[in-house]
Amino acid sequence: MSIAETAAAAKSASIQLAAVKTDVKNKALAEIAEALRENSAEIVSANEQDLTDAQKSNLSAPLLKRLKFDEQKIADVCAGIESLIKIDDPVGRTIRSTELDGGLELYKVSCPIGVIGVIFESRPDALVQISTLCLKSGNAVLLKGGSEAQHSNKILADVVSRASEKAGIPKGWLGLMETRADVAEILKMDQYIDLLVPRGSNEFVRHIMDNTNIPVLGHAEGICHVYVDAGADVDMAIRIAVDSKCQYVAACNSVETMLVHYGIAEEFLPQVKAALEEKGVELRGCEKTAAIIEVKAVTEEDWSTEYLDYILSIKVVGSPPEAIEHINRYGSGHTDAIITNDSGAAEEFMDLVDSANVFWNCSTRFSDGYRYGLGAEVGISTNKIHARGPVGMEGLLIYKWKLLGSGQVVADYSGSGGKRFTHKKLNKDCEL
Amino acid sequence: MSIAETAAAAKSASIQLAAVKTDVKNKALAEIAEALRENSAEIVSANEQDLTDAQKSNLSAPLLKRLKFDEQKIADVCAGIESLIKIDDPVGRTIRSTELDGGLELYKVSCPIGVIGVIFESRPDALVQISTLCLKSGNAVLLKGGSEAQHSNKILADVVSRASEKAGIPKGWLGLMETRADVAEILKMDQYIDLLVPRGSNEFVRHIMDNTNIPVLGHAEGICHVYVDAGADVDMAIRIAVDSKCQYVAACNSVETMLVHYGIAEEFLPQVKAALEEKGVELRGCEKTAAIIEVKAVTEEDWSTEYLDYILSIKVVGSPPEAIEHINRYGSGHTDAIITNDSGAAEEFMDLVDSANVFWNCSTRFSDGYRYGLGAEVGISTNKIHARGPVGMEGLLIYKWKLLGSGQVVADYSGSGGKRFTHKKLNKDCEL
Repeated sequence: MSIAETAAAAKSASIQLAAVKTDVKNKALAEIAEALRENSAEIVSANEQDLTDAQKSNLSAPLLKRLKFDEQKIADVCAGIESLIKIDDPVGRTIRSTELDGGLELYKVSCPIGVIGVIFESRPDALVQISTLCLKSGNAVLLKGGSEAQHSNKILADVVSRASEKAGIPKGWLGLMETRADVAEILKMDQYIDLLVPRGSNEFVRHIMDNTNIPVLGHAEGICHVYVDAGADVDMAIRIAVDSKCQYVAACNSVETMLVHYGIAEEFLPQVKAALEEKGVELRGCEKTAAIIEVKAVTEEDWSTEYLDYILSIKVVGSPPEAIEHINRYGSGHTDAIITNDSGAAEEFMDLVDSANVFWNCSTRFSDGYRYGLGAEVGISTNKIHARGPVGMEGLLIYKWKLLGSGQVVADYSGSGGKRFTHKKLNKDCEL
Repeated sequence: MSIAETAAAAKSASIQLAAVKTDVKNKALAEIAEALRENSAEIVSANEQDLTDAQKSNLSAPLLKRLKFDEQKIADVCAGIESLIKIDDPVGRTIRSTELDGGLELYKVSCPIGVIGVIFESRPDALVQISTLCLKSGNAVLLKGGSEAQHSNKILADVVSRASEKAGIPKGWLGLMETRADVAEILKMDQYIDLLVPRGSNEFVRHIMDNTNIPVLGHAEGICHVYVDAGADVDMAIRIAVDSKCQYVAACNSVETMLVHYGIAEEFLPQVKAALEEKGVELRGCEKTAAIIEVKAVTEEDWSTEYLDYILSIKVVGSPPEAIEHINRYGSGHTDAIITNDSGAAEEFMDLVDSANVFWNCSTRFSDGYRYGLGAEVGISTNKIHARGPVGMEGLLIYKWKLLGSGQVVADYSGSGGKRFTHKKLNKDCEL
C-alpha cells in the first residue's frame, strides 16, 4: 500500500473504532500482550538484526541502548498494557448535559480525535506504548519509526495489528509507514491525520512543527529555570538546584539556567557552586555572578541553549519581575520553579511565568506524567491550546455534541412570541 | 506602530493581563459600556462615513446591513457586555488537584491562552464582542477588520482601549491592525499570536486556515445533512427538513443535502417536495429521487457545495451506513441530523458520523452557542482538537500546572528504596 492508501485506510478504520465497545478494546489489548509474549523470540531476533546493522553503521551507545528491545522490555510493555486495560474507557463520557427544552437534551460526550500520526526515532517500545494508548482511546494510528529500527518495528506492528484485529478491532486501524516512506509526505496528510505526536530529539520535533499544517502535540525545547528568590531557604535552594540540574541531565525538565536574586547571591552562590561542582557541573555566569564566584563567562546564546549536559548558566537579577521577564523571553514555556519562603513572590511568579508548569519550592524534575499521576504519558506539550504540560490519554480525546430531540424546530423558538429555552443543567449521562 | 510592534506589545500585555483580578476586569467592562454610550454620537458618525464610502463603492445590500452600527447596535453590544460582567471569571479555576506526597500538591488551573488574533469582515459589533470576551478571559487581542469598516473600527478600538486601560488593564492589550496592514503578515506572527479566530465568509476562513501555522478556531464550510431514516415519522421529518433548510438559509448550520432511506422515499418525497417548494426551495435529486418526484438532476459537485440559498440536494440511500458514509465523505464535520423512531439507528448514526454536532429528531439549526446555552459564542469550530462545535469562552482558555512543594527533590523518589507518590485526589482549590 502507498502512504496515502495506508492513511486513507486508517481514517476509514478510525470511524468504526470510535464506536467499538470497551470490552472489545480491552480484549484486544489482552490479545496484544499475549501475542507479544508468544512471539518474543521472533521479536528479539528481529531487534538483534537491527542492533547488528546499527553497530555496523556506528550508531552511538545511547542510541543503541534506546534501540534495544529484549525480553525485559517486552515484559515492561506488557505490564503497561495490563494497567491500560484496568483504566476506565475515556470514550463516551458525558462531560456536560443540558436540557434546552422539554424533550430536547444536549450532551457533550468525549470521543477520539480520529487518526494520530506518531513519528518516532529508535525506541521500538514507543511503538507498542503509543499504539495501545491509541487503541484504548479509540484512535487509529499511523506510525513512522526510524530506519535503524525497521525490523523491530515491522514485527511489532504486525503482532499488534493481527492480535487486535483478531479481537474485533477494525482492519487498518494501525498503519506502519515503511522506512522508505518520506516523513515529508506524512506531514502533508492533513486530510487524513488529525494530530501528530513526534517523539525524538529537539531538532526532530522542531523540524516537524515547522513543516506541517497538522496540529502537533509536543515540545521542541526544554529550557527550564530555577529562580532563587531573596526569600529562599539557602539549603533548600541548593538541594533543588542540584536535583533540577543533575538528577538526569538529558531530560527536557532538567534546569539549564539558574536566576539568583542579588540579595541572596553572596550567601548562596559559593555554596551552590561547591555542591554543583562536586557533581561535575560546569558553571557559566553573568558579570554579577563572576564578581562573587569564579565562573566561565556566559554568552547571550547560553540563555537560549538547552545543554542537556552538566552545564548551568547563572544570572543575578534585581527582582522577581526581572527573573520573570528573563524566563518569558528565553524560556521554552516548559517548566520553571521559584525557591522562596515569600508566598507573595511565589504567587506573582506562578501567575506571570507563561509556562506549562510553574513550581514553588520543588525540583523542575517533577514535571512528568508519571510523577503527576496521569497514568500513561502521551508526551509533554508546550502548546497553548488543547493540552499543556505532561499529557495523559485525555490529550488523544475531543468531544462531540449530541442533541436528542422529539421533533423540535428552530422556527418555534424564534421571534417575540417564540418558545423559550430552559437551559437547565441535567447532570445525567447520555444514553445514546 | 508597525504590525510587529503592535503584536509584541500585545504579547507583553497578555502576560500581565493573565494575572489581573476579576474586579478590575469587570470594572473595565463596565467602563467600556459606559464609554460606548457616551461616545455614541461620534461612533455613529464614523460608521456613517463608512456607510457612505461603501455605497459609493457599490457594496451589496447584505454587506451594508452588516456594516451598519447604529444606536440600536450600541445598545445591543452594551447589553452583551453587561451579561459578560455577571458571569464567573473563567480564569484561575482549579480543574484538578492532586497530592503527590505530603506537602507536595499539584493543581491544574485554568488560564488565558495569551494573544488571540481576530480577523473579521464588515461587522463592527464583532470588534466589541470579541475584544470584551478576550478581556473577561484574560487574553490580549489583535484585531484586523475590513477596510470598508475602517472608521468604525478605529473609533471602537480607541474607545475600548482607553476605557479599559483607565480601569487598570495593561496598555497594549488591544491592538488594531490598520487597514493597510497585510493579513498575510499577521498570518506569519506565530511568535506573538497563539490562536486565530477568523470571522467572515467561507472563502475568507479557508484562506486563513490554509496560510498560517498559527492554530485557527473556526469552520470553513457548513455542509450539513438531514438523514430521513426508514423509521422516521413522516410529518416530523417534513417539519425538520423545512426548518433545517429554510429557517435561515444563509446560516452555516442550515442543511444542504437530504438523504432519504429508500423504504420511506415513496411516501416522504412527494410530501416534502410540496412543503419545500412552497417555501421556494429548488430541489436537485439523484436518479432514484427523480424516479419518485420531479427534480433537477444533481451533479457530483452538489454533494460538496454549501449553497447558503434556497437549494437542496437529495439522495436516496439503501441503509443508515450508506447515509453515514456519504456524510463522512462529503460533509464538513459541522452538523448532521437523523430523523427516526429507531433508537438503534440513531445511536449508530451519532456514533459513526464524525461531526462536531450529531442530532436526533431535531433541526440542524439548533447548533449554535446561544441555543446551546453557552453564553457568548466565540465561533463554531470543526477542528478535531481543543474545541469543537459551538465554542463559548472556554475556547479562549487553557491551563497551567502549579506544583506547590516544601523542598522536595526527585532524587528522593528514585530507585527501589525511594519515597512513593501518594497521588491522592485533593478536591480543593489552588490558593496561589
